[in-house]
Amino acid sequence: MQKSPLQIARQSYQPKMPVALQGAVRLVEGEKTHSVADQEEIQKLFPNTYGLPVITMEPVAESKVESQKSKAEPFNVGVILSGGQAPGGHNVISGLYDGLKALNPENKLYGFLGGPSGLIDGKYQELTGAIIDEYRNTGGFDIIGSGRTKLEETWQFDNGIEICKQLGIKAVVIIGGDDSNTNACVLAEYYLQKKCGIQVIGCPKTIDGDLKNEMIETSFGFDTACKVYSELIGNIQRDANSAKKYWHFIRLMGRSASHIALECALQSQPNICLISEEVEAKNMTLNDIVEDIVKVIVARANAGLNFGTVLIPEGLIEFIPAMRVLIQELNDMLANNEEFTSLDGDDAKREYVKSMLSPASCELYRSLPKGIARQLTLDRDPHGNVMVSQIETEKLLIEMVQKRLAVLKANGEYKGKFSALNHFFGYEGRCAIPSNFDADYCYSIGITATHLIAAGKTGYMSLVRNLTKPAAEWIAGGVPITMMMNMEKRNGKMKPVIQKALVDLNGKPFQYLQAHRADWADPVTSYIYPGPIQYYGPTEVCDQPTRTLLLERGK
Amino acid sequence: MQKSPLQIARQSYQPKMPVALQGAVRLVEGEKTHSVADQEEIQKLFPNTYGLPVITMEPVAESKVESQKSKAEPFNVGVILSGGQAPGGHNVISGLYDGLKALNPENKLYGFLGGPSGLIDGKYQELTGAIIDEYRNTGGFDIIGSGRTKLEETWQFDNGIEICKQLGIKAVVIIGGDDSNTNACVLAEYYLQKKCGIQVIGCPKTIDGDLKNEMIETSFGFDTACKVYSELIGNIQRDANSAKKYWHFIRLMGRSASHIALECALQSQPNICLISEEVEAKNMTLNDIVEDIVKVIVARANAGLNFGTVLIPEGLIEFIPAMRVLIQELNDMLANNEEFTSLDGDDAKREYVKSMLSPASCELYRSLPKGIARQLTLDRDPHGNVMVSQIETEKLLIEMVQKRLAVLKANGEYKGKFSALNHFFGYEGRCAIPSNFDADYCYSIGITATHLIAAGKTGYMSLVRNLTKPAAEWIAGGVPITMMMNMEKRNGKMKPVIQKALVDLNGKPFQYLQAHRADWADPVTSYIYPGPIQYYGPTEVCDQPTRTLLLERGK
Repeated sequence: MQKSPLQIARQSYQPKMPVALQGAVRLVEGEKTHSVADQEEIQKLFPNTYGLPVITMEPVAESKVESQKSKAEPFNVGVILSGGQAPGGHNVISGLYDGLKALNPENKLYGFLGGPSGLIDGKYQELTGAIIDEYRNTGGFDIIGSGRTKLEETWQFDNGIEICKQLGIKAVVIIGGDDSNTNACVLAEYYLQKKCGIQVIGCPKTIDGDLKNEMIETSFGFDTACKVYSELIGNIQRDANSAKKYWHFIRLMGRSASHIALECALQSQPNICLISEEVEAKNMTLNDIVEDIVKVIVARANAGLNFGTVLIPEGLIEFIPAMRVLIQELNDMLANNEEFTSLDGDDAKREYVKSMLSPASCELYRSLPKGIARQLTLDRDPHGNVMVSQIETEKLLIEMVQKRLAVLKANGEYKGKFSALNHFFGYEGRCAIPSNFDADYCYSIGITATHLIAAGKTGYMSLVRNLTKPAAEWIAGGVPITMMMNMEKRNGKMKPVIQKALVDLNGKPFQYLQAHRADWADPVTSYIYPGPIQYYGPTEVCDQPTRTLLLERGK
Repeated sequence: MQKSPLQIARQSYQPKMPVALQGAVRLVEGEKTHSVADQEEIQKLFPNTYGLPVITMEPVAESKVESQKSKAEPFNVGVILSGGQAPGGHNVISGLYDGLKALNPENKLYGFLGGPSGLIDGKYQELTGAIIDEYRNTGGFDIIGSGRTKLEETWQFDNGIEICKQLGIKAVVIIGGDDSNTNACVLAEYYLQKKCGIQVIGCPKTIDGDLKNEMIETSFGFDTACKVYSELIGNIQRDANSAKKYWHFIRLMGRSASHIALECALQSQPNICLISEEVEAKNMTLNDIVEDIVKVIVARANAGLNFGTVLIPEGLIEFIPAMRVLIQELNDMLANNEEFTSLDGDDAKREYVKSMLSPASCELYRSLPKGIARQLTLDRDPHGNVMVSQIETEKLLIEMVQKRLAVLKANGEYKGKFSALNHFFGYEGRCAIPSNFDADYCYSIGITATHLIAAGKTGYMSLVRNLTKPAAEWIAGGVPITMMMNMEKRNGKMKPVIQKALVDLNGKPFQYLQAHRADWADPVTSYIYPGPIQYYGPTEVCDQPTRTLLLERGK
């Protein structure tokens, strides 16, 4: 396999580590814990994994290490990558591998292939040193592949027991987002009830940044992905500020929370940054959003500047209450609707749809640009649902802004020129080479997981905290997954799930945006140009965590 | 102005320089030159700037420097940024500034604002040391702005004389692509004929890479832009190889030549890379292209791989002979066509267009996906022409591939799944922070220009060669612009222009692609992951030129 010079150079990078993880460790248990809400129900559902203490790892004095080492019995571990890719996954796995080998060179690490289905179907591969070395500090999940199969059914869990027994696996490590970690806990509870002796440990992954809470400061991958997007946004802003003729509407991945858009805004200071959670909280309509954007465009045009940047979170549409209603009506109307399917031509279909919608939804539908309206009715998933994630919200906004500006121009209230370009960034960042931060963080998460396993823990998430300090000062440990749970409705049923962290409108990152967005919209340029992720060079250039993390931790 | 840590760190980067430029220089003249073609006509049009010798700069022994310095009379220079942004423009200007100040601290540098129109309208700004320091090693053209006004008319040239006299400007430096440098030469010739004593020097800029020839090894900006795009392509490829479910169709900027797509392919080894020049040479139809792509998709699907990457040069459409005919017919038909405009509804317009096209074009038009067909007829520029650069060729190809695969599936010849995602990269790279290569190269181009000016040269392009060697060994000099010219038809008239360098199908970069593309299409992964541009670290990571340059120079 041919490699780029940077690929080759990164192979020999040695992740920085907390002092506590550099040798043997001692696990210190804190107070018993409670779930963040719905304590009674969660406790009932997780009788064996509820209320466990938070764990902190402390270094063991050198003298005690040798005696401990001789005691360690060899054991095997299985690892699963679950859901969307996030930079650093390979380092969690290399941390696991190194941690296991440090405990006992006879320990083995197995990777389940293609996500959770690998455990269910018994598809696996032993991860040898040679394989691990190929993937150290690299992006992607290609070492064993990932998948979106959900571990929810007892037959799946029972299949897991079979394969784990065959392979002598003492613990399964699940690297995933909030749902995957919820399922990891369900699995841990089930295996405890079954007394099969298999432990389950979760690791907090997601570029979306919505798996965080009192204990988990950030999910891995968020740092790298946001830096990649911010690099591109910065480059586009420099282009906008040079060419002085385009408005760039940039949609960013992150469907259920706007952390990515917010972090990118903090890094690059665009003229406008929409935050879905704010749109919902203010009960804004699509027209309200358009009006807000238009105000900035007009003000800048009055100062002679016909260019700018707008960041748009991928999930925006679903946070607009009226749009949500329209989409629901369309889903109900068009599922298995043969009358609609048999209509000839776009115009006829459009008329049909209009005749069937509620008056409010019909008005909204009519106000949408035709291309988007067509997308809402024609492109549907196999269940007949509108594919919301495919909607090019950035184009929708451009067209609506264009229309509104034309009206203002006709009224003499706008004299500028409006040319817009659209971008969507998502896949560009999910598999980037992990930043030093993510490389270090993930490696420590992996090492930490091995210590939790060695100590017989289950139902825990591997925890590394104090992340705004140098890596040497990071604190490693474990947090009981039940502690992060509450009850939520999913497909009509109440389920125990890890509470998703949406953007907190009272939190410091959003407050910072709010305090500065008027300045950033201003004709005096506030753009910041972050440039590409650096792996070498001054520490302030190559080892900084996200602005979100710094602000949240009071930096 | 707030800055990112990398912005701050890059301010103190000192570009590497050829030994010959590190002190005073001596200009050595070579043989007289000829234009690459049409010698007689070019000589007739450029009686004063034709046939000048190539110039090489050699270092002057220390002892002679002092005497030379005392002789240098102070003079002023004006600089213009022309056309699209390219990383490194600011370093040409800082090289100019430092070069001028080294010759005589009283020398002044003026920047004409907003491109060539700044010279015509007398809009300028003195570039002081404080301003220059803000822009060293940064991307963008925002120091003085750029513009696309063409310097072609004598009244423009005469306006230039006025403002240059006012400011005591001895020479104008034009930083631009092939057209801008052609115009620089026309201006130089005019000023010689007018005996107004104003010199004109050009600098080779364009991310497209199509300004190169026997003398100019590469235009600046190509290196950085291709590295940014290759970073993103590599990241997407790692994602494709991890998720294993999407085909990514990636369109890349570069309308008239496919150098960018080719270079990115050499850096990242995608499964498929289309080259416009090859499509034209083979007289391929859109269906031929689709068929080629489909073959690779089917072969990979047969091996169980339903993912991959396709690189598409922005200008592809215009290199397909039949498409060019269709577009011409549409332009002729729809310009000021009130009958068409008055038609109600998309379907009616579509029928009208079909009824008016030639049979061959009509068939092609019918075969196009509706969205693209609509784009061809509805979105037109103010002159009524189809806006070819706005056509989303990557979506066009996806839809046509999808259709073709559906037919194969119905016939039982294809059993895979095809889900595709589309991307367009262009604005992300034009204003990136210049790579060390571009930062160094541009700074040397700037310094070299000052020596050409000091020696009274005009009609020259600032030349830095030997670029695959370490910067210390680079060779600086000047090349007469007429040497690169030939006669070409522009808007119906024969004009002297710098010969554009399209991808040479017999050249080593394309030959390398051709020799390896079957391997890259193969189910065994050949992807390379270049990662982001590094400014620090091992020299093989942060100082490499493009693969195109290395291959062309026999590396």
